Amino acid sequence: MVKVAVDAMGGDNAPGEIIKGAIDAINKMSNIKVFLIGKEEEIKTELKKYEYNKEQLEIMHTTEVIATEEPPVMAIRRKKDSSLVKAMNMVKNQEADALVSAGSSGAILVGGQVIVGRIKGIERPPLAPLIPTAKGVSLLVDCGANVDARASHLVQFAKMGSIYMENALGIKNPKVAIVNIGAEEEKGNMLVKETFPLLKECNDINFIGSIEARDIPSGYADVIVCEAFVGNVILKLYEGVGATLISKIKGGMMSTLRSKIGALLVKPALKETLKSFDASEYGGAPLLGLNGLVVKTHGSSKAKEVTNSIIQCVTFKNQKINEKIKANIIMKDE
Amino acid sequence: MVKVAVDAMGGDNAPGEIIKGAIDAINKMSNIKVFLIGKEEEIKTELKKYEYNKEQLEIMHTTEVIATEEPPVMAIRRKKDSSLVKAMNMVKNQEADALVSAGSSGAILVGGQVIVGRIKGIERPPLAPLIPTAKGVSLLVDCGANVDARASHLVQFAKMGSIYMENALGIKNPKVAIVNIGAEEEKGNMLVKETFPLLKECNDINFIGSIEARDIPSGYADVIVCEAFVGNVILKLYEGVGATLISKIKGGMMSTLRSKIGALLVKPALKETLKSFDASEYGGAPLLGLNGLVVKTHGSSKAKEVTNSIIQCVTFKNQKINEKIKANIIMKDE
Repeated sequence: MVKVAVDAMGGDNAPGEIIKGAIDAINKMSNIKVFLIGKEEEIKTELKKYEYNKEQLEIMHTTEVIATEEPPVMAIRRKKDSSLVKAMNMVKNQEADALVSAGSSGAILVGGQVIVGRIKGIERPPLAPLIPTAKGVSLLVDCGANVDARASHLVQFAKMGSIYMENALGIKNPKVAIVNIGAEEEKGNMLVKETFPLLKECNDINFIGSIEARDIPSGYADVIVCEAFVGNVILKLYEGVGATLISKIKGGMMSTLRSKIGALLVKPALKETLKSFDASEYGGAPLLGLNGLVVKTHGSSKAKEVTNSIIQCVTFKNQKINEKIKANIIMKDE
Repeated sequence: MVKVAVDAMGGDNAPGEIIKGAIDAINKMSNIKVFLIGKEEEIKTELKKYEYNKEQLEIMHTTEVIATEEPPVMAIRRKKDSSLVKAMNMVKNQEADALVSAGSSGAILVGGQVIVGRIKGIERPPLAPLIPTAKGVSLLVDCGANVDARASHLVQFAKMGSIYMENALGIKNPKVAIVNIGAEEEKGNMLVKETFPLLKECNDINFIGSIEARDIPSGYADVIVCEAFVGNVILKLYEGVGATLISKIKGGMMSTLRSKIGALLVKPALKETLKSFDASEYGGAPLLGLNGLVVKTHGSSKAKEVTNSIIQCVTFKNQKINEKIKANIIMKDE
């Protein structure tokens, strides 16, 4: 049984979509137990809508909620009875294997480090979402946890990302690249120039050199290493360009009678295509390198993303990813 | 007459597409004179294909070409008789108002600073392309000239970008935003945190605060200020996500007989839509803050982009953008 603590109160669509996502997850897989954490009355009202195996679900009552706009450090410290802090403590105390939250990113990052804690030897836990590509998915690491990171952090991101892609997604010998502004080794800013030779020296990863942002969507690398500011820009621009382009295309198709008829005919095929380029299909982003698994999903997550994020926790546990991080990164570095 | 020196030998499609683009420009506008700079024999062979007003075109023979992979500083210093260095010198000596090149980015950036030279008081000349948005275009400044920039550089980028958008594109009181990883003022890396209050103090620009990468394609700001590494990632990812998504959509439309028929019907409308999201429609990227105008176009530029880049030089000169940069930025700072 994989035990997942779900922050029922976090995110724009909480608790409705979060709870629906949790129910869908336990109805899909019998080896998951979900703890729904939050205001008991609200959770119970939502639960009345669904049929599910009662043994796979437990409510943990809490009274407080951390809002997105609250300063994260303060919120984590003061709101001891918030759904997020409770979930963090359950992971820390090994009452849960993992937690999933669509709540405040800042609070999740702070809570992950302060409450759950880093694996000994890991300097900074990066946020590592999967992003869709022409070939499937790539792991973007770090996409927002550690701005102004150092070269040694990026080297650990590369190693953890490589272990994650190999074990969680079954990609043998994943190709690791560093985001750069040119393909040549002498290109880059100070951080990239310092990190590049260190990555070249790592003989436990398949480092293929620099990747220009243009080549990220084509699936040129499996693990894309970058500093958090750059990673956050990549992740958000991916969404932004995709959304604007799709809305332009839809608008264009509605512009003439001829194209309107065409649009009706292409609609089902197009829907299928766009689904494969939709980040929510791939669950949330794990914070790698913590003593337990913390998965952050979009603040705007709907049930589907919550379900996928919960299912993701099963692979993470079964593939013993944290054990492999400990064995492959820390032992070797010591 | 606006005199434009065109590097006929620079870029993946030189000299054919470059020369075609130059001819299209003079055939469109009678107030442009183009100097085609490069190997005379090759240029003459190409020119035989076209009809044009001979008084609007002159060939300047040079023997050398700077290749993309050459170290830029060395190339600019040694290849005195290259098409790019010749074009740079023509701008420096005011024999030309502007130059357009699709050649080595590094050599264009170095040559711009070393040969053409900065306007007195400008610390770093940024590369500032227009990028397509849902509403029209935005200016991305800096997109690759100055990695590891300082806050004072970004403030000048904001001011120059604002003058450019107001005068070259006629956008009154353009909205200026800084790329950030969250909307709140306390978010960001060290550079953004240092730059933000300085931009807030500028009363000669319409600073609207942070912009998340997600909101760039929607056209939320007219001038998008960022450090060159981030800007380069934005520009290239724009291209990459667009290209991958469009190829996925085209593939999707070919997947069933029904959708194939639909694709035939939507094709003309779709083509029109995608054209509005195509960066090459908007010409090249000016290097702002130089004693003269240097326009860098994509290495892969076709005739259309070259034509638009040449026409762009007319507006730049007629709107006296450099004079306005001198008057509004330098005088005030002194």
